[in-house]
Amino acid sequence: MNKIYSFGIGVGSKNSQGEWLEVLFPSPQFKPDPEISGVLRAVLGHETADIELNNGQVIALESALRTSGDTLIADSLRMLSASDQPLVAVLLISDDAPVSVPQAYLKLQLLSHRLVKPHQTNIDGIFATLKNIAWTSAGPIDIAELPGRIVEAKLRGQSLTVNCIDKFPKMVDYVVPSGVRIADASRVRLGAYLGAGTTVMHEGFVNFNAGTEGPNMVEGRISAGVFCAAGSDIGGGASIMGTLSGGGQMVISLGKQCLLGANAGLGIPLGDRCTIEAGLYVTAGSVVTLIDKNNNETQAVKARELAHKNDLLFRRNSVSGRVECLTNKSAVELNDELH
Amino acid sequence: MNKIYSFGIGVGSKNSQGEWLEVLFPSPQFKPDPEISGVLRAVLGHETADIELNNGQVIALESALRTSGDTLIADSLRMLSASDQPLVAVLLISDDAPVSVPQAYLKLQLLSHRLVKPHQTNIDGIFATLKNIAWTSAGPIDIAELPGRIVEAKLRGQSLTVNCIDKFPKMVDYVVPSGVRIADASRVRLGAYLGAGTTVMHEGFVNFNAGTEGPNMVEGRISAGVFCAAGSDIGGGASIMGTLSGGGQMVISLGKQCLLGANAGLGIPLGDRCTIEAGLYVTAGSVVTLIDKNNNETQAVKARELAHKNDLLFRRNSVSGRVECLTNKSAVELNDELH
Amino acid sequence: MNKIYSFGIGVGSKNSQGEWLEVLFPSPQFKPDPEISGVLRAVLGHETADIELNNGQVIALESALRTSGDTLIADSLRMLSASDQPLVAVLLISDDAPVSVPQAYLKLQLLSHRLVKPHQTNIDGIFATLKNIAWTSAGPIDIAELPGRIVEAKLRGQSLTVNCIDKFPKMVDYVVPSGVRIADASRVRLGAYLGAGTTVMHEGFVNFNAGTEGPNMVEGRISAGVFCAAGSDIGGGASIMGTLSGGGQMVISLGKQCLLGANAGLGIPLGDRCTIEAGLYVTAGSVVTLIDKNNNETQAVKARELAHKNDLLFRRNSVSGRVECLTNKSAVELNDELH
Repeated sequence: MNKIYSFGIGVGSKNSQGEWLEVLFPSPQFKPDPEISGVLRAVLGHETADIELNNGQVIALESALRTSGDTLIADSLRMLSASDQPLVAVLLISDDAPVSVPQAYLKLQLLSHRLVKPHQTNIDGIFATLKNIAWTSAGPIDIAELPGRIVEAKLRGQSLTVNCIDKFPKMVDYVVPSGVRIADASRVRLGAYLGAGTTVMHEGFVNFNAGTEGPNMVEGRISAGVFCAAGSDIGGGASIMGTLSGGGQMVISLGKQCLLGANAGLGIPLGDRCTIEAGLYVTAGSVVTLIDKNNNETQAVKARELAHKNDLLFRRNSVSGRVECLTNKSAVELNDELH
Repeated sequence: MNKIYSFGIGVGSKNSQGEWLEVLFPSPQFKPDPEISGVLRAVLGHETADIELNNGQVIALESALRTSGDTLIADSLRMLSASDQPLVAVLLISDDAPVSVPQAYLKLQLLSHRLVKPHQTNIDGIFATLKNIAWTSAGPIDIAELPGRIVEAKLRGQSLTVNCIDKFPKMVDYVVPSGVRIADASRVRLGAYLGAGTTVMHEGFVNFNAGTEGPNMVEGRISAGVFCAAGSDIGGGASIMGTLSGGGQMVISLGKQCLLGANAGLGIPLGDRCTIEAGLYVTAGSVVTLIDKNNNETQAVKARELAHKNDLLFRRNSVSGRVECLTNKSAVELNDELH
Repeated sequence: MNKIYSFGIGVGSKNSQGEWLEVLFPSPQFKPDPEISGVLRAVLGHETADIELNNGQVIALESALRTSGDTLIADSLRMLSASDQPLVAVLLISDDAPVSVPQAYLKLQLLSHRLVKPHQTNIDGIFATLKNIAWTSAGPIDIAELPGRIVEAKLRGQSLTVNCIDKFPKMVDYVVPSGVRIADASRVRLGAYLGAGTTVMHEGFVNFNAGTEGPNMVEGRISAGVFCAAGSDIGGGASIMGTLSGGGQMVISLGKQCLLGANAGLGIPLGDRCTIEAGLYVTAGSVVTLIDKNNNETQAVKARELAHKNDLLFRRNSVSGRVECLTNKSAVELNDELH
């Protein structure tokens, strides 16, 4: 028994102190055939989870895996064996919190490759593990080395432009899942999970450990930890509270075929076929007056009591100013040719 | 009689199957002199709307057009004749829906060159015509070819960064209309129409087949199909419903000198000199209480009944919570030195 | 007495007419030792505030400053002396409005280097001084020269992509202050002041002459002229009115440990520990009903009368629709590991 949680061989970059900045894993493996573990350990040894490789080791590993019948991984390794950049193997026996940059990048790529869903892999402490990096037109640069690089480029009349200074890169420089459109790639972080048929428009945003089942239209902000089931539509500028910002302990999610209107906001988990009208922010503590099918008010409750209930329509009555909740039977369907 | 709707000679890129990805038309022509049609057909033949050209044909066409006195087009062709990239001529006799990538790009460039206004050219079915493309630091790349390109670049320590995965590119990589500022160019799609004197701030957005007459300040989102007349100001984060998202069948527009406050929203066409206060979302179905000049309420109507009316001020009464509409006599004037 | 307000030696770029487009000052000086003035004038002469330098002059200046003991500035000059791009010295005796591109860039860099805070340096008329520039993957390009450059690149199959068409570049291509993260660098303009410990998320925005004391979490929009004291948190999509857009004459600011909820808005200066709930826009003219500790309403006032008061909580009552203001004793603390 050599069960493995995940395995990847990657190519990355380091700062001038030789510390890893980031790693691309072209073909990360999730719960691969246990036999692979034996092959890996025979070639790479048993020491640690992260093993830096030279090109010869990659070729040896390719050969061993091809012999054992793992052709796909072997093919990926053949490509990597030509690298003139640093290579690393990461072998995770169990789903522990990442304690190195390569491990953190492997876990984020498991998410974006749709091998695990948000909340299904342990990324505790990932902020402390990752380095703050300048993501530039010349690739990732350690923050401490950036000012010198900017001046050097300028003196030579070259363009060095900084796109992002952050611990997380954009997803699509590492993983391009099938069947998606992302109008402004800077707004989807590595570690996002975008199901097939997801469109993220210019005003959309998806954090790591968050995402969509697909198909979905995303024109608002999906915070860390939030997941949207199939057919839900996040309107332009809509806000969804996350566990990191504003949402407290409750994990926010959207069921199937929900609609958050433009500039609306959500602070509770929604069931299926729920709608929040454009411009209305429903927080967990909002007092909401329930209206029955006969248009009579029945009671007033805190919105958190409506968590996970289906077929609700939230609106602010434009005459009384009161926030109301109606049963909503008209389901939202996504237009195939949106945007 | 050889009337032409539009004509352009462009340079573009193809995927590895030889399919067009996109085309730049440096000098697209709208309803050019009918005589040009004869020249074009004499040189290029009569077959189809899209004719792929070799450099010799471009030179022959340049010569023929120069002889016929069309000096400006000839000058543009002289430049193109030096291309080492694929060239194409598109000749549209009438305003039909685009059925090829070159035709779609020609129509989008007619819009962004201000040769036609939104809704004035037929772009039916353009989504199905366009390909989903990765717009990268190395230029447009077919989605299917992207993952391999990313790994190849990484192995060589080169930076390949993906800015957008979408059917529509950003406008300014194709057309830079005079007299505009666009703080974040990724937020104006090709096919937008920006009149002279338009500033699109970082939070502004303009979709294709939408835009501004100019001058205008745009800090909010102008959805597909929406047009804003001169002097109107779209506040930060303001939402305007489009025909593709939320707005239904009614075409939304803004008259002259309107103001959408920050984080406001609009779901009806406005007349001239209307204001929606910051933070208020007026949808077509909002019940709005009308207030006359003597501050008496007169009636309550659905907002859609106020479509195209002038001099309205929409606000939510902060004591009663009611959405009200007042006559608004103070016109909005744009500050010359905004932002 | 040779008092100096500011001094910088920079490297920049010019258009084909020889006009300055922009200048990078690697080590701008604010109120340096008066003795430096004498050294500068001895080497550079007395003529004007902006002096274009050849590399020999830079070396002479380096030598003179090293002799006078100004080692740090001398080191910076040694680096610049290797430039193959245009160099300029700017020497500002007093805090006058900038009248040239180099002067405007020096002042904006004083702000972003945290040498002066917003409103502490005179930038009157800076819009008229700066040129509208295309900020591209090939560096800054004069707008008039852009269309030709785009076509040239395209004909050779090269990628020239335009990121921004604006008078202000993004900050981090010039200044990278310590201890910050900026998820989308295009949303912080040069001239922003970001204190240590500031995180600007993807939806955050900071204009020039505006910023944060640090630490702060910024997920909303800090308009020109606005300053946020330590510990305040600007929620996703929150709007803050600026002096250029919507805020009128009153300078908006936030005290310590305030919270603007997601999609909220602010039109008055806040004291310390104030909260505006998610989705509520408080403008200066909003009528706000005050609620005391015993939950009784006391009076209704315009929000502008609450400017600079501490410990306020603004909310819209979700039953009555009324905007209310409560005393808020629970201070907001920033999570160290946010986002």
